[in-house]
Amino acid sequence: MYNNYNLVLGENAIVPLIDGRKVRYVNLDNAATTPAFKKVVEDLLDFLPYYSSIHRGMGYKSQVSTKLYDDGRKVVAKFVGADLNNSSVIFVKNTTEAINKLSNMLYNKYKDDIILSTEMEHHSNDLPWRKFKLEHVKIDNHGKLCLNDLEERLKKHGGKVKLVAVTGASNVTGYKNDIHYIARIAHKYGAKILVDGAQLVPHAPVNVKAIDSEEHIDYLVFSAHKMYAPFGIGVLIGAKDELENLPPDYSGGGTVDVVTLDSVKWLHTPEKDESGSPNVVGVVALTSAIKTLDKLGMKNIEEYENRLLKHAIRSLQRVKGLNMYCSDCNKNVSIITFNVDGMYHETVAKILSYEFGIGVRSGCFCAHPYIQRLLNISEEEVKKISKLAGSRPGMVRISFGIYNTLEEVDYFVYAIKKIISNKESYLKKYKN
Amino acid sequence: MYNNYNLVLGENAIVPLIDGRKVRYVNLDNAATTPAFKKVVEDLLDFLPYYSSIHRGMGYKSQVSTKLYDDGRKVVAKFVGADLNNSSVIFVKNTTEAINKLSNMLYNKYKDDIILSTEMEHHSNDLPWRKFKLEHVKIDNHGKLCLNDLEERLKKHGGKVKLVAVTGASNVTGYKNDIHYIARIAHKYGAKILVDGAQLVPHAPVNVKAIDSEEHIDYLVFSAHKMYAPFGIGVLIGAKDELENLPPDYSGGGTVDVVTLDSVKWLHTPEKDESGSPNVVGVVALTSAIKTLDKLGMKNIEEYENRLLKHAIRSLQRVKGLNMYCSDCNKNVSIITFNVDGMYHETVAKILSYEFGIGVRSGCFCAHPYIQRLLNISEEEVKKISKLAGSRPGMVRISFGIYNTLEEVDYFVYAIKKIISNKESYLKKYKN
Repeated sequence: MYNNYNLVLGENAIVPLIDGRKVRYVNLDNAATTPAFKKVVEDLLDFLPYYSSIHRGMGYKSQVSTKLYDDGRKVVAKFVGADLNNSSVIFVKNTTEAINKLSNMLYNKYKDDIILSTEMEHHSNDLPWRKFKLEHVKIDNHGKLCLNDLEERLKKHGGKVKLVAVTGASNVTGYKNDIHYIARIAHKYGAKILVDGAQLVPHAPVNVKAIDSEEHIDYLVFSAHKMYAPFGIGVLIGAKDELENLPPDYSGGGTVDVVTLDSVKWLHTPEKDESGSPNVVGVVALTSAIKTLDKLGMKNIEEYENRLLKHAIRSLQRVKGLNMYCSDCNKNVSIITFNVDGMYHETVAKILSYEFGIGVRSGCFCAHPYIQRLLNISEEEVKKISKLAGSRPGMVRISFGIYNTLEEVDYFVYAIKKIISNKESYLKKYKN
Repeated sequence: MYNNYNLVLGENAIVPLIDGRKVRYVNLDNAATTPAFKKVVEDLLDFLPYYSSIHRGMGYKSQVSTKLYDDGRKVVAKFVGADLNNSSVIFVKNTTEAINKLSNMLYNKYKDDIILSTEMEHHSNDLPWRKFKLEHVKIDNHGKLCLNDLEERLKKHGGKVKLVAVTGASNVTGYKNDIHYIARIAHKYGAKILVDGAQLVPHAPVNVKAIDSEEHIDYLVFSAHKMYAPFGIGVLIGAKDELENLPPDYSGGGTVDVVTLDSVKWLHTPEKDESGSPNVVGVVALTSAIKTLDKLGMKNIEEYENRLLKHAIRSLQRVKGLNMYCSDCNKNVSIITFNVDGMYHETVAKILSYEFGIGVRSGCFCAHPYIQRLLNISEEEVKKISKLAGSRPGMVRISFGIYNTLEEVDYFVYAIKKIISNKESYLKKYKN
């Protein structure tokens, strides 16, 4: 488990710095997207000569492609403990599509009811729900979800809340919600639960549990490009009995049984929910990535990344002039967000890249309300800022993958210390 | 131009027949999807070590990835003569997504107006428009679009028709519509035109023409997986002035400028129309495929494939007991649909695969109304059939790509002749 260095493509890439020197790139932006597993690319190269149309093609290659595509559903279901008898595994292009699709499908059914999202969500698990009567469950001052507020809202609306849409782990702070506890209280008040698993599924074991468990996760969504298979594929896993009775979100080829000029008979889920030619290559890539993750063991991956996280948090806690947000190695997946005192977040990210060859992300991470809360910015201030060009509030984020090393964490900490101790000259050079 | 054999992956694949013999696979199902260009896969292998998050990442790899992604828009625009000053190039996963996205975006604007689709469309350019006041432009008894009917409807509705959604080439018969003539009459009556280019763009030069031309194509959609880059990517190219003023179809990460708990400020098109993490690998693949197609020359490709088509049509015309539909080598892209007298379409496809190693498709090709017309089946019959399990009306389709050869056409004709001359024994073996 401590020799995962060779798992991904590009782990040895040499990149130029601003002064012309060349260094090995250190990628600490895995929460945005991950490099491809080498095994994924090997499996794709084996498959591509046999790639062909699926389901309705009769040729040998079509049969090979169809089998791999259909088997993909089983592999995905098994990976998260879903039962294909009651869960539909729908392939989409990414998590955002999965949530939009579900929200559109549920709209007519639940438009007079209430959906709960939270103040810590990625925009993709917030904006698609705003066409409903939507409430945001509050977070506390540490950036953690107020479970009391969740239960109070469920109680107050007495059965009118139909869905709790919550992230498995925050893409900003890495904070992990107790999804099974949330499932239990959601179900207690007659609501279903959707877990945005984009940041959770690649970093910890996830099990949706049996349909008759109070802790069952009704809907789970995630993206392959955050789990070492960046080939345009994601998954919506969901309650088959509900999805089966809803018309598809997008219509077109592949979704229908019979069509005349004035009538349509839809196929069943998941087929009716995958309009257009499916991304077979993406599914083969995801299947391969899951097999590698399974082989490594999600529990081992979680433990290894937690070692990186612990080591980074402890090291950064000793650095003066740096603030971390909601950093908790017992509760978080391998993400740390921070700011350097007196330095614009984007400038820090730029210096890490230009002077040290370290790739990170800075800004608001598509979760503006959460960032506004963590940074204590009022809605009025935000609205004022939004009219200006230029600097925006935000943070710097680092995020680890299974192939990162303790040495890389040390190099990052070294870089941050150097930036802080040479702040004035860097500020001059990069004009903040 | 006559040595394209080595262009794609898997052109030498050996597959088993039902009797255990092994033969080289002949893929004649390119209208469904195409194999990958070898060059596309080479370019991906060069790129993948540098794959990283785009737009908001600061690292060197993010900058490389962002540049390639953004350049992709220019390459696509140039390929079809679009001007990025007035056309937005939006990356989607496939043609079906492109059309659904456009139809959802236009819905509020045009829901009280009229959309014209046609009786020859793929479901993906028909069903998404059915939520509007939709009329289907008629086809004649040869399966060709009635341009008179189109103009009469435009005239009759006097400016109420806002969009004519028409295929560039039929996925059933290969019949090419005169899209620029259709554009001219659509514009004359104040309508825009959307061309479903899925079957046209990979097989003939397409130019959307300048925005001030009467022949300008306002919206063009197509898929990379039909043009030798099957990595989950497609394109919606459209009128920037219209798209810019419409809220996005799917919302979420990447679509917004500023968000608070009760307000959203969208970004501009195309960014606001690409929610979620983009498929960078797909865009790099499409860019590479376009470069190869450009190098070969779309005019040359069209001529070469037309030679294959002509040769196939002439050879099949001499075969007794076989009916072709709307076969016209002067008007069609390289697709032929046919039936063998007294043999179920799927059985023919199966025998071609199991006995000869030839991959084709059979059925209704996601264009039921067109098939019903070509086969002279009444709506009542269709509704009756739709309640039954088992056999369905349909056809066999062969479709060529740039890598197919005259020898492969001859082998296919040989196979068909053999099937017809041994019909009884095959029928016995495959129980029709």
